[in-house]
Amino acid sequence: GYEVGVYPSSGTGMLEAAGAHAVDPGGRVLSCAGGEFGGRFAAIAERFGAQVDRLHVEPGQVPDPETVAERLRGGGYRALLLTHCETSTGALTDVRAVAAAARQASPDTLILVDAVSSLGGAPLLAAAWDIDAVASASQKALAVPPGLGILAGSPRLLERAAASRSPRVYWDLAAYGRNRRQRRAPYTPAVNLLYAMDVALERLENEGFEAAWARHRALRDQFRSGIARLGMEPVAADACASPTVTAVRPGPGLEAGGVIAALAERGILVAGGMGPLSGQVFRVGHMGAVEPRHLDRLLAALAEIAARG
Amino acid sequence: GYEVGVYPSSGTGMLEAAGAHAVDPGGRVLSCAGGEFGGRFAAIAERFGAQVDRLHVEPGQVPDPETVAERLRGGGYRALLLTHCETSTGALTDVRAVAAAARQASPDTLILVDAVSSLGGAPLLAAAWDIDAVASASQKALAVPPGLGILAGSPRLLERAAASRSPRVYWDLAAYGRNRRQRRAPYTPAVNLLYAMDVALERLENEGFEAAWARHRALRDQFRSGIARLGMEPVAADACASPTVTAVRPGPGLEAGGVIAALAERGILVAGGMGPLSGQVFRVGHMGAVEPRHLDRLLAALAEIAARG
Repeated sequence: GYEVGVYPSSGTGMLEAAGAHAVDPGGRVLSCAGGEFGGRFAAIAERFGAQVDRLHVEPGQVPDPETVAERLRGGGYRALLLTHCETSTGALTDVRAVAAAARQASPDTLILVDAVSSLGGAPLLAAAWDIDAVASASQKALAVPPGLGILAGSPRLLERAAASRSPRVYWDLAAYGRNRRQRRAPYTPAVNLLYAMDVALERLENEGFEAAWARHRALRDQFRSGIARLGMEPVAADACASPTVTAVRPGPGLEAGGVIAALAERGILVAGGMGPLSGQVFRVGHMGAVEPRHLDRLLAALAEIAARG
Repeated sequence: GYEVGVYPSSGTGMLEAAGAHAVDPGGRVLSCAGGEFGGRFAAIAERFGAQVDRLHVEPGQVPDPETVAERLRGGGYRALLLTHCETSTGALTDVRAVAAAARQASPDTLILVDAVSSLGGAPLLAAAWDIDAVASASQKALAVPPGLGILAGSPRLLERAAASRSPRVYWDLAAYGRNRRQRRAPYTPAVNLLYAMDVALERLENEGFEAAWARHRALRDQFRSGIARLGMEPVAADACASPTVTAVRPGPGLEAGGVIAALAERGILVAGGMGPLSGQVFRVGHMGAVEPRHLDRLLAALAEIAARG
């Protein structure tokens, strides 16, 4: 079966861990980056020596299954890098469809998925969708404090990694598994955070995964209808709107930095844009412990700010 | 000046980070491992492609400055790996003397120090002793929950690392520094643990470093005299006894596993041996939040266990 490691790490560490297992110097990798985090994944693969080809994806859009399959066909790609939820734009890739098309087009290509800001908030079925690596973290939809990274690796990934010389000791999932089977950790675990995760996962199991996904979709819809009423525009198209995070262009007469500052004055912290969206958007996480009333309060504040102009 | 990064990581991650900055494929590295953690450091350097030479150090002993210097002389070593406190044996290397001898014998060799179980509990002056990397962690003498790794790198390390192609994105200290100067983190920091560390460092500053070191020496002396009275023998020689941790051979008629189990029955958790010391010793951390009364209680329990035989 799959091996799952829970590391003292951030989500970025898990992208590095996935790369250290799947990338070999000189090997070809296809990146489908539509934003900062997809770009980070590609940069990691490059630093581990891969020859990275980039499929162009517009910010707010997601890669199309057939386009990915076309690029993979006959390309001898060792790995495909996907970003489930691109946190910088709020666009959610249809990983199921892309992975199915990719597997058919190039059966040997390892499929690596950055699920940092989606795991727990949107369906992602690693085994059923035949994904080779899922990288995630504690502090997003799982609602645990930051500090834990989660990496799930398929038997295919572990087998390929065993033959690779990419350096990995801290990240090594096979070593993690050997230790886990002896009820040990390969090095000091962040026990305080593991207790928190235990509670969070129990809550999630009690709620049910389907219910948790539906709850996140409802939060997204609440937020997107709210900003539409204010004339603000989400970066991600409706067809690929992430249930966990939305990047918003504040619209005419308003400046993203000003909106963020005005929200902060009201005790509400939201994030700014990254990369080409710097200064262009504000970003709202509606996941994990976020409740409808939190979004109501945010939307009321945004209405005030928009009215003031 | 030195760059200091505080990462979501364990101490082992910081050994890997130090390696990723200092080791180049094919480069020669001298390891002075006298136990499991020194061996782990060497294994990491090897995995990053170094040709690792090993200086033999008996468990419970520490490397001798002149022997290290002799091995380094003319060897073209890129890096020297030292373990300040070898947590598996409780032996403390005289890093000041070894680093001074090493620097004189081979000025270009990077000096990397594993200070995971010593930082805060024993003197270690990176700049004054001209050390290139100090790796440590939150949960030992600093008395913070586990989950943070600390890496300090000298200007020499950063300059050499810039020219090296060893893969490092998550660990990259230069990127950490660029972000820090903009009051940012390169990726999600473990904020909850950073708040805990802030409190711990303030306490340490209020106590004074000299006082904290003296406190740890006193704990060590209390524990070592206590076990001597029970006829138990520390693994580390008096001349290199770590102020932070002691590995103990329980002595005739007692078996380490039995002592650990008997202590656990009394609600006292101590560690077992590692590697060749597995089953031979129990290990006691007397650092961080440990107070003399805790050691009194432990010694009383050990006296009972020894009397029962």
